[in-house]
Amino acid sequence: MEWEKNVRKVVPYTPGEQPKEKDIIKLNTNECPYPPAPGVRGLLEQMDYEDFRLYPSPSADSLVCALAEYYHLDASQVFVGVGSDDVIAQAFLTFFNSKKPILFPDITYSFYDVWAELYRIPYERQPLDADFRIRKEDYLKDNGGIIFPNPNAPTGVLEDLSMIEEIVAYNKDRVVMIDEAYIDFGGKSALELIEKYDNLLVIQTFSKSRAMAGMRIGYAMGQPELIRYLNDVKFSVNSYTMNRPSLILGVEAVRDDDYFRRIVGMIISTREWMKKELSGLGFSFPDSQSNFIFATHEKYPAKELFEYLKTKKIYVRYFAQPRIDNYLRITVGTDDEAKALIDALKSYL
Amino acid sequence: MEWEKNVRKVVPYTPGEQPKEKDIIKLNTNECPYPPAPGVRGLLEQMDYEDFRLYPSPSADSLVCALAEYYHLDASQVFVGVGSDDVIAQAFLTFFNSKKPILFPDITYSFYDVWAELYRIPYERQPLDADFRIRKEDYLKDNGGIIFPNPNAPTGVLEDLSMIEEIVAYNKDRVVMIDEAYIDFGGKSALELIEKYDNLLVIQTFSKSRAMAGMRIGYAMGQPELIRYLNDVKFSVNSYTMNRPSLILGVEAVRDDDYFRRIVGMIISTREWMKKELSGLGFSFPDSQSNFIFATHEKYPAKELFEYLKTKKIYVRYFAQPRIDNYLRITVGTDDEAKALIDALKSYL
Repeated sequence: MEWEKNVRKVVPYTPGEQPKEKDIIKLNTNECPYPPAPGVRGLLEQMDYEDFRLYPSPSADSLVCALAEYYHLDASQVFVGVGSDDVIAQAFLTFFNSKKPILFPDITYSFYDVWAELYRIPYERQPLDADFRIRKEDYLKDNGGIIFPNPNAPTGVLEDLSMIEEIVAYNKDRVVMIDEAYIDFGGKSALELIEKYDNLLVIQTFSKSRAMAGMRIGYAMGQPELIRYLNDVKFSVNSYTMNRPSLILGVEAVRDDDYFRRIVGMIISTREWMKKELSGLGFSFPDSQSNFIFATHEKYPAKELFEYLKTKKIYVRYFAQPRIDNYLRITVGTDDEAKALIDALKSYL
Repeated sequence: MEWEKNVRKVVPYTPGEQPKEKDIIKLNTNECPYPPAPGVRGLLEQMDYEDFRLYPSPSADSLVCALAEYYHLDASQVFVGVGSDDVIAQAFLTFFNSKKPILFPDITYSFYDVWAELYRIPYERQPLDADFRIRKEDYLKDNGGIIFPNPNAPTGVLEDLSMIEEIVAYNKDRVVMIDEAYIDFGGKSALELIEKYDNLLVIQTFSKSRAMAGMRIGYAMGQPELIRYLNDVKFSVNSYTMNRPSLILGVEAVRDDDYFRRIVGMIISTREWMKKELSGLGFSFPDSQSNFIFATHEKYPAKELFEYLKTKKIYVRYFAQPRIDNYLRITVGTDDEAKALIDALKSYL
């Protein structure tokens, strides 16, 4: 077909499987094993369906203000989108317009190169060291922008804030994005640096620690000038990205800080138990500060374990990619789920 | 700031005002004056908030299948997104990659040039004739793609399907998008042409006739190859665009066809009454086949009427743009709202 010559051809990102059966143990997409804040239920029940006929707030005020209040920021420092994927995609489109390559690790969230390819942004992968750590000096050179997750995915490795500050400080002429999808599980956020560095954008999500993957809410924080540019692009794509339920229920997920801290604590405690058990079974893994463990076994190939677990209705994530094709990324579930996983592995090994 | 040189600078679209007061008569953003299908209320009440912790279906199966069934299509012929703005923006990014200009009317949905500017797509506006009609011959020439709404916005003018077919047939080498946001209010959809033309994409929305602007659902229909390319780009931006409530409630809005037909009928009947009354008051307007009327008065400037109505808490839309700066775009509301509008105008004129 002749019109195909004008099509933007891309190789899309492949999300983790979303099986429809209810009786599986789903440890493959880093969702929270606990429900959203209990107040969400009440708000859902009170929601007036008649209002759905009206457009939502284009500026998503209620949610932006709730986040600003929670993080002690001004509303002008917060941007919200349809999950952090939407936020980061828009940030790539907004800020990565240099002819110089943007930089990110060779092992990282596999959406970065997809976005770069989609928007025709040149990029250069920087190899992690043998311990899956970021080598700071790789980011202290000329470039068109920087992004990496902290903790990194799918490794779970947390980098120190002082190293991040050094990278941000060196790169004042371009935007540095820190993708903090997993920061609440043991890391220290770079948020405290945004007052000092106008080139730093910190991105977080409701999909992990706030137990709201199904509501699609992500957000970015930075100085007002960065957020204004991001909003200009957002308002050039879609005026109304956040639907009414997201705006209403998202606010509650931010407000209930006690519940948030409680479930995060439970996940951390399960993770530490899993680490001990996995070690005992001959697995090794970088010390995860996220809600997943990136594990490899001394004897059993990851792909074989992945397929075996699937027969036991336990879904974990396997990436057939260089350097990590002998690893499994295992989401930290409830204690019961973690125990089922360990039991299944025990009976196999 | 040095990083600003790499920012994608854009002039964003300005959506209609979304005032927060509850006691206004809102005839400015073409929302449906009636609530969504009554079954939506029940589904909202039954929705399990605990599921919100899980990602939604990335392929939005349930909604895609409901739409496919409704329109007698295969699921491979339907694409869904966060409102038709999201769908069209992605379609621009996917299909308009020629160096030749895309074509759209000079008076039309004012997001088209914003998307073209955002994605650096060359474009050329084709002037409507004196009666605000599309001149077919303007689209029978070399170009990089075509988009226009039918009925057109903000004019409300419906073009004949035979003319659309002629344009689609002539332009087999590029994609032609028909934006049918308002088609249900009296038009004949180009959907029946998609089997015949693999370059035709038909876009519709839940925001008008399906009374769901607040849920953000839009969709595109075309041959599987078009839809596949669109999905490739979607999966290169954000795997999960439709949140769980959208997927659940959207299905019901499609299924309840009786309700849909009933509210559309009511809106059409109110529109026809408004036409008569507005004529009687000295307004003239193209014959709208949409849920709004684009009216100009022989004596009173549109801007003055716009401001007067606002003092009466009646919001209509005014565009300070060439050729249309003496027009008001008035959404068709309920009978009571329409009467309040006419009464307010009577007391002013």
